[in-house]
Amino acid sequence: MADNIERMKKQLDFLLELDKMKNIYRRTYILCDDLPAGSKEFEDNFKERKPLPRRENDAEHSFSLAVAALVLAEYSNEPVDTAKVVKMVLVHDVVEIDAGDTFLYDAEGNKTKREREAAAAERIFGLLPPDQQAEFRCFWDEFEANNTPESRFANALDRIQPMLLNYTRDGISWKEHNVRFDDVAERNSHIKDGSEELWDYVYSLLEDANSRGILPR
Amino acid sequence: MADNIERMKKQLDFLLELDKMKNIYRRTYILCDDLPAGSKEFEDNFKERKPLPRRENDAEHSFSLAVAALVLAEYSNEPVDTAKVVKMVLVHDVVEIDAGDTFLYDAEGNKTKREREAAAAERIFGLLPPDQQAEFRCFWDEFEANNTPESRFANALDRIQPMLLNYTRDGISWKEHNVRFDDVAERNSHIKDGSEELWDYVYSLLEDANSRGILPR
Repeated sequence: MADNIERMKKQLDFLLELDKMKNIYRRTYILCDDLPAGSKEFEDNFKERKPLPRRENDAEHSFSLAVAALVLAEYSNEPVDTAKVVKMVLVHDVVEIDAGDTFLYDAEGNKTKREREAAAAERIFGLLPPDQQAEFRCFWDEFEANNTPESRFANALDRIQPMLLNYTRDGISWKEHNVRFDDVAERNSHIKDGSEELWDYVYSLLEDANSRGILPR
Repeated sequence: MADNIERMKKQLDFLLELDKMKNIYRRTYILCDDLPAGSKEFEDNFKERKPLPRRENDAEHSFSLAVAALVLAEYSNEPVDTAKVVKMVLVHDVVEIDAGDTFLYDAEGNKTKREREAAAAERIFGLLPPDQQAEFRCFWDEFEANNTPESRFANALDRIQPMLLNYTRDGISWKEHNVRFDDVAERNSHIKDGSEELWDYVYSLLEDANSRGILPR
């Protein structure tokens, strides 16, 4: 048995705590769930307790960002340590276990977001042994401060990924929340601080969505 | 607009393809879904199309392994490049998009697993530009070959994570599939090739599960 069994238990408790992220749902819908309600597949899924057509959760979102960091790092405006970007995106949303997901276009919720999330970071990273608590908290603080090449690129990915899903699903979440082209363009324009190339591309997708009427001006 | 727009489109297609992993369900159950069928919360979730009590999907599993790699790397028998372990676990299950999840205790399915997964790797990594195709394929091949410090540790994590979830949920998946202590101990004993310390600890959990009758011998 490990000598440092108390240390290991703290680490495993932290990992089990993060399992809760699989139950925190975002506004974005995943791509592969187009089962019409009432169809045989839909009813079978219900009986078998498989998920219904549904939104993305925080664990899935974080997974997608981590792979995106590996694949798209070359488009960062500044050279980045990819491994650090991956670490950052893997932990950037753990605070939502306590603070919940705050929708980008929710003005009220965004007023108290920082305070709620800071308290959550204190508790959740506090489950780890002190050295790792400090290390992971640093990644999270840096992501929030958004003032380094890695955090600017990580924040860009955090915005690009839901836009791509929404665009690919014909703007389902934009329509549901009555979001308009100008809102999306304005609130996501800091993507270009992380990657001008990716921003140019997703902006062209927004214009296409506008021209097809799924994201009106 | 990026000069290399065709390259970027291939990369984004690969990322969108991986969204399918959010719909590939494993045998393991997530921790936070204990809603009794027929309860108000259960019915509300159904109406709002939130997932019902449910199993873990491949995207969530991969997320959990990536964070586990960051937190538990110190227990690897041999020194490892943690960033490489993270990359490996992030892509180790993409082949299941085509080949599906093969349950560890499914003897028939495991006979054809390697062949089905190799064809899947060819197609899915083939969506990437050639340089990244080679890079990601290497991570996957190394994980499968299980013959380096990083792949031995990654494979250990791949076994430890579902065992921890199952143990924490009182053996729900073991009971469902009528798995016994000796099966679990034998099929997972190569965890110790990656980490003797973690194997010692999870073995003690198995013994506890046995003593409580949730994993009979």
